[in-house]
Amino acid sequence: MKVYFLGVGGGIPSLDRTLPAIAIVHKRHILLFDCGEGTQLQLQRAKLSPQRITQIFISHLHGDHVLGLPGLLSTMAMQKRVKPVSVFGPTGIREFVEVMLNLTQAQIEFDLNINEVEKGIISQHEEYKVECLSANHNVPALTFILRMADIPGRFYPAKADKLGVFPQSLRKELVKGQAIVTPEGRRVTPDEVIGPSRPGAIIVYTGDTAPNPDLATHVKNVDLLIHDATFAEMHKEKAAEFLHSTARQAAQTAVQLEAKQLALVHISPRYASSEMHLNEATQVFPNTFAPKDLEMLHLRK
Amino acid sequence: MKVYFLGVGGGIPSLDRTLPAIAIVHKRHILLFDCGEGTQLQLQRAKLSPQRITQIFISHLHGDHVLGLPGLLSTMAMQKRVKPVSVFGPTGIREFVEVMLNLTQAQIEFDLNINEVEKGIISQHEEYKVECLSANHNVPALTFILRMADIPGRFYPAKADKLGVFPQSLRKELVKGQAIVTPEGRRVTPDEVIGPSRPGAIIVYTGDTAPNPDLATHVKNVDLLIHDATFAEMHKEKAAEFLHSTARQAAQTAVQLEAKQLALVHISPRYASSEMHLNEATQVFPNTFAPKDLEMLHLRK
Repeated sequence: MKVYFLGVGGGIPSLDRTLPAIAIVHKRHILLFDCGEGTQLQLQRAKLSPQRITQIFISHLHGDHVLGLPGLLSTMAMQKRVKPVSVFGPTGIREFVEVMLNLTQAQIEFDLNINEVEKGIISQHEEYKVECLSANHNVPALTFILRMADIPGRFYPAKADKLGVFPQSLRKELVKGQAIVTPEGRRVTPDEVIGPSRPGAIIVYTGDTAPNPDLATHVKNVDLLIHDATFAEMHKEKAAEFLHSTARQAAQTAVQLEAKQLALVHISPRYASSEMHLNEATQVFPNTFAPKDLEMLHLRK
Repeated sequence: MKVYFLGVGGGIPSLDRTLPAIAIVHKRHILLFDCGEGTQLQLQRAKLSPQRITQIFISHLHGDHVLGLPGLLSTMAMQKRVKPVSVFGPTGIREFVEVMLNLTQAQIEFDLNINEVEKGIISQHEEYKVECLSANHNVPALTFILRMADIPGRFYPAKADKLGVFPQSLRKELVKGQAIVTPEGRRVTPDEVIGPSRPGAIIVYTGDTAPNPDLATHVKNVDLLIHDATFAEMHKEKAAEFLHSTARQAAQTAVQLEAKQLALVHISPRYASSEMHLNEATQVFPNTFAPKDLEMLHLRK
C-alpha cells in the first residue's frame, strides 16, 4: 500500500505546501482523503490517474479541504469516466457538490454517490473498511479510520500432505475457511494447515482537529497516524483558539494510539520549514516525519 | 502596463498549461480576467499579491474559468484584507460566489461587490473602463474590452513662455483643459501649448467563443487581442460543435479588429505543443504569439 501526501499545507497554499489531499493506493484503486484546490494537478505530478479514484473522503467543508473537488469531478467527466465514484463527508457535502456541478454546468455521466456521514463504518469492502468519528474542530468535521482486511495466515503444504488433504480442491476449501473430510475419512480444520491471520494495516487521518480524547477509544495499534499539526508550540494558544493541534499534541495522540508512525500535516504557511514541528514532536514520539508535498510512503505489512 | 498570462490552458489543466487567468497590472492595481483552479498559486509564482487585485472579471461559469475564485477570495480574507473587491460576470456568478463562501464558511470581512452583467460599460475609472458584450459560446459568456484612458498630449513650455503664460498656476489650468487669460490680457486655449492626446491602449479578452461577428462592430484598433484558440484546424469541427475557435479563426478576428498583436489562449490539453496553432494563425495574422503559463507582456503605449 502506498500513501501519497499530495498536499501537506493548510489554509493558504504556498509553492512548497499545497492544500490537503492524501491518496492511498491499494492495488488498482485510489482512496482520496480531502481535496484542496490544486489536487488534480498534484495527482498529475504524482502520476496517479483520477480514473483510479473510487472513493473520496472529505473531512470537512472548510475551503482548503474541499475546493479542489468540483474541478476533479469535472475532469473525470471530461475524461469520459464511466466507473462510479463515491464521496463521503459531513452534512453539507451534498449541497456543495450538487450546487457547484450545476452552476458550472458540468456534464457528469458516471454514477456519483454522495454520502453525508457522521460516525461508524461508512464504507465496507472485501479488502478494507473506513470508519469515521467526529473530530474536535470549529465546524462539523470528521476523522477517518481506514482498516485493511486481515492478512490471511500462511498455508503449509507439508502439513496438508501429511494429513492426506488431496485433491487440490479440498485445499481451496480450507483456504476459504471451511473444514473438510479427506478421502481417507479424516476431518481437517483450517487451523491445522494454515497459520494465524494477522491484522491488516490501520491508517488514521484526523483532518483538522484539536486533541480528541475520543479517538483512543475507537482505535489503537495504528500503523500510520496522519495528524493535524498546524502549529508549533510557540503558537499553542492559536491552536486552542482555532481548534487545531500543535505538532507536540499530535505526538501525544500518537502515543495514546500506540501508533507505529506519525505524519505531521496541515502545517500553517507561517512556518517556512517544518523543522520546529518535527523537533517538538519527536521528543514525545520519536517515529515522526513531516512529509513534503508529493512524498510517498510505502506501507508494508 | 503588464499583462501576465497566468494560465493558458482550457478544460483540463496540465502541468504546462494551467487553467485560464490573466492578470493586467496597471500601477498598483491588478485586474484579473477569469480565475481557474490554481490561480492563487500562479499569482504567487508571478509574485503578484492577491491584495493588489481590485476587480475580477469572469467570462462564464464553466468550471475551468471560475473554480479558483472561492479559494482566492478565501485567501484574501485569511490575509485580513480590508480593501473592497468587485467581481463581474454573467448571471449566476452571484449565486456561485455566495453559495461557495457560505458552504465553506469563509469569513469575508471586506466589501465584496458582485455584479451580474450582460453588455455595455460595466466598470468606469479615471484611468480605464471595461466594457463587455456577449461571446458566442454554449452558455452565457462574456467578451471583455479594456480601454485605457487617453494619454494626455505633451505640454510645450517654450510655447507657453512665448505666449506669456505666467505664473505656473495658469499652466496647470491649461493642463486641466481650461482656457486662461494671461496677465498681459491674452486668451490662451490648451491646444496652443499642448499637443494632441493619443488614445490609450485597448485590450480585448474574448473568453471562450466561436468567431463572433459582433465583436468588430464594438471595437477596432485593438492593441492586444487575447483570443480563444482551443483547437487547431484539424479539429475545426470540434471547435464549431463546442463553440470554441481555432487558432486560424482567432487570427481572422485579429485582422477584422485591426489588432496590433494576437495572443492565443485556452489551448486544449490534447496538443502537447502550441506550434501548430501558431503556424496556422501567423499565416493569417503575422504578429501572433502563444504565451506560455506565467509569460508576461509589457504593453507600452
